[in-house]
Amino acid sequence: MKLSINQLKYLKSLHGRKYRQKYHNFIVEGTKMAAEVLAAGNLEVESIVAVPDWLDANSRLVEKSNAPVSPVAEGELKKISLLSTPNQVLLVVKQPDWHFEKNEVETSLSLYLDDIRDPGNLGTILRIADWFGIGWVFCSPGSVEALSPKVVQASMGAFLRVKCFELDFDELKSHLPGLPVYGMVLDGASIFDEKPNTPAIIAIGNESRGLSAEIQSKLTHRISIPKGIGGGAESLNAAVATGIVCAVAMNT
Amino acid sequence: MKLSINQLKYLKSLHGRKYRQKYHNFIVEGTKMAAEVLAAGNLEVESIVAVPDWLDANSRLVEKSNAPVSPVAEGELKKISLLSTPNQVLLVVKQPDWHFEKNEVETSLSLYLDDIRDPGNLGTILRIADWFGIGWVFCSPGSVEALSPKVVQASMGAFLRVKCFELDFDELKSHLPGLPVYGMVLDGASIFDEKPNTPAIIAIGNESRGLSAEIQSKLTHRISIPKGIGGGAESLNAAVATGIVCAVAMNT
Repeated sequence: MKLSINQLKYLKSLHGRKYRQKYHNFIVEGTKMAAEVLAAGNLEVESIVAVPDWLDANSRLVEKSNAPVSPVAEGELKKISLLSTPNQVLLVVKQPDWHFEKNEVETSLSLYLDDIRDPGNLGTILRIADWFGIGWVFCSPGSVEALSPKVVQASMGAFLRVKCFELDFDELKSHLPGLPVYGMVLDGASIFDEKPNTPAIIAIGNESRGLSAEIQSKLTHRISIPKGIGGGAESLNAAVATGIVCAVAMNT
Repeated sequence: MKLSINQLKYLKSLHGRKYRQKYHNFIVEGTKMAAEVLAAGNLEVESIVAVPDWLDANSRLVEKSNAPVSPVAEGELKKISLLSTPNQVLLVVKQPDWHFEKNEVETSLSLYLDDIRDPGNLGTILRIADWFGIGWVFCSPGSVEALSPKVVQASMGAFLRVKCFELDFDELKSHLPGLPVYGMVLDGASIFDEKPNTPAIIAIGNESRGLSAEIQSKLTHRISIPKGIGGGAESLNAAVATGIVCAVAMNT
């Protein structure tokens, strides 16, 4: 129940972006999320590395996946795990190839993320999109990698359902020139007065700098979350702001 | 411009909860937050450890604080910093002694956090409270420490303005038996239909288990953030959920 040196080397290499891009795959860890990936069945699983107990408990899902299985001891799994808590399973999963579908986006509420850098924030934003049934999240080129381990972990499985990939803002606009773009800024109209109506794109800016001047110049609506009386903070966390604007857009 | 061995030892000890509690202080790092603490002037600063450039640029604030100053080289500061990016200043700050003020809480919207464990979440929740002008955040005994370095960092200075401390739920209720308590649960009424009116307490549960059965039995209102059509996520992040309910309570 040991991994070969080559297996170990290969699995460890996938902790780095370079090799995830080279092999076009990514790592999913943790019993719950691994079971969810196998049950969903929409992403190709390249291999399952797990302790025998987990394989027994999930034998039907494992069989259904048709993926090669490496049973390993827990100590062996620890060598390749990025989780701090004891882990039972690690999947290598092929990266999904999402493609822009004009007819879907032009009838939906979608998100455009301008230079989000923190993987926890991107994962949390994908989880928000997943909760509200938002199917498309576009990231500006150079944003944090959408399938890095920390994003995958924070997304709580949202990467199975939310289509997230890099797309230049101008290219997105060129596909859908008439679609309103609501940008989150600090000096816009209240989201409660000027709430984003579907279909539209909501643009969220970088954690410290907000939306770039270039994207700001192309917005159709500038919107803000009103600060409370006596409020002292300079801004809200990017994922929290995204959650608030999505909740208001979908519910009021 | 070196710290003595005893200074180094003392400052490093404050990375641990045990010594922060013993000395009743905590650490604030980073140029912006340090300047904010000195400018606010409401917390006692025990010492300032900073590079000469930072001390020069902030000489008025430093003087006003009357705190002992240790000028150090950047390499020396690195030895005691928990930040990953180059740091210029570290403050040792006395912990504030907030006390429950019935007349304030009984006219306000306040938060009760039941067993929040992730420091990033608590810091983000304090930042949310700060943004919306919510002055009181109570934490159940055993929650993550409100002045741990990661909470302080994520709060973006909110610890200067938001009164946050441990308080047993029953004790809070005993002070204000008539105050409505809105609890965030997965099967409650929509926050848009049954929005929390000031004065009230909004209770938020633990990241994985939600509100404890005991606190749930004492709620006056059970509320939820409505899931979108086709939404797949099982839940929202605790800080995101807090942001959404606060935004709706304060604005609609």
